[in-house]
Amino acid sequence: MSIKVVALDADDTLWVNESYFRKTEEAFCQLLEGYASMHNLERELVRTELDNLPLYGYGVKGFMLSMIESATRISAGTVSAETIDKIIELGKKLLNEPIELLDGVEEVLRSLQGKYRLVVATKGDLLDQERKLKKSGLSHYFHHIEIMSEKDDANYLKLIRHLDIKPEELLMVGNSLKSDVVPVLNIGGHAVHVPYHITWVHEQINHTIEHENFRVVERIDQILAFL
Amino acid sequence: MSIKVVALDADDTLWVNESYFRKTEEAFCQLLEGYASMHNLERELVRTELDNLPLYGYGVKGFMLSMIESATRISAGTVSAETIDKIIELGKKLLNEPIELLDGVEEVLRSLQGKYRLVVATKGDLLDQERKLKKSGLSHYFHHIEIMSEKDDANYLKLIRHLDIKPEELLMVGNSLKSDVVPVLNIGGHAVHVPYHITWVHEQINHTIEHENFRVVERIDQILAFL
Repeated sequence: MSIKVVALDADDTLWVNESYFRKTEEAFCQLLEGYASMHNLERELVRTELDNLPLYGYGVKGFMLSMIESATRISAGTVSAETIDKIIELGKKLLNEPIELLDGVEEVLRSLQGKYRLVVATKGDLLDQERKLKKSGLSHYFHHIEIMSEKDDANYLKLIRHLDIKPEELLMVGNSLKSDVVPVLNIGGHAVHVPYHITWVHEQINHTIEHENFRVVERIDQILAFL
Repeated sequence: MSIKVVALDADDTLWVNESYFRKTEEAFCQLLEGYASMHNLERELVRTELDNLPLYGYGVKGFMLSMIESATRISAGTVSAETIDKIIELGKKLLNEPIELLDGVEEVLRSLQGKYRLVVATKGDLLDQERKLKKSGLSHYFHHIEIMSEKDDANYLKLIRHLDIKPEELLMVGNSLKSDVVPVLNIGGHAVHVPYHITWVHEQINHTIEHENFRVVERIDQILAFL
């Protein structure tokens, strides 16, 4: 490997994210438990989110709008304005959650700093991701922050052009096989999967990956063994 | 002037935007006219939008959430789920509005292409701005697309570093004095103001600008006279 740039996903790679979404989802289901079973509420919310994804993209605001839309539908138009307010409050709380770094993250950044150019490569809402990075106290480790509307082959190619490196000089580290691994291997880069204990349904893929440029580690600090 | 890069704002500089927001705002007020006067509805909506701006940032999704929040508040918690649905529909319609180029835009881009590096410098929602640019058919004119969470001095400095130019080699063209002119003059660049016939209250500033690097034109194609 002749890696020049180590790019790291942010949500659920540098810090906790999906857990806060799940907690919000649970609170949403509790708010509406008079209208349907937990199972059906969850299913309706996920369906609405996925339906709206092409229009809203990733991030908390789209999630808030999908919770509201699900609430009016699952209640057959009877949900109260008070419940709508509570959903908005849940979303605002989610936007203000503290940043909880995952184990080993700071150690990894400290070790790699100076040896590689470090980059954050994330998707989602621009302002929200910038705010989280600032709150994390990690900004100073990074040479560049790339926030993409979608983590696909085209956007990774744009990133390596921007960084002026060859695909094989990029190592991407992240928790999503779909967003952090598959497109990076597609364009000729290296990828490391650090699974998070929960994965959003939209990020799940059904096949296993075997590739000479691909590794799986249990904790992020295990990448130091080969970098 | 030794301009190397001409950067253009997108909304209300390349294409119609604010007019669609105003149309949506009017439809919102009509939906809720049973609860308050048009004037008070408008005032409440603008206030809510501005309050939420630090948390939501710019763009349609934040606007949708602020409409919903205003509706529950102005109705004192009595607004129906049906009205909430209609607000969501208004927002989705706004996200799907066609792109209507402003007069002279395509001619300007055709003339400047090859002579300068052309850049889009806009703020707002990542996915929404990318979608609008794609729909506009103008993407091929641009060397780089910069979508910022806020158009301030720091982000313009980041842009010129990214473009590897000196501040005085940047000319920014846009409809907002606050976002397209003031910060660009602050960092030592050149700016041209092309007023749009309506300006969102948040973009209004109260002082006049006199600066040797600053000009005002009525139509965008008038910039060709000095470029």
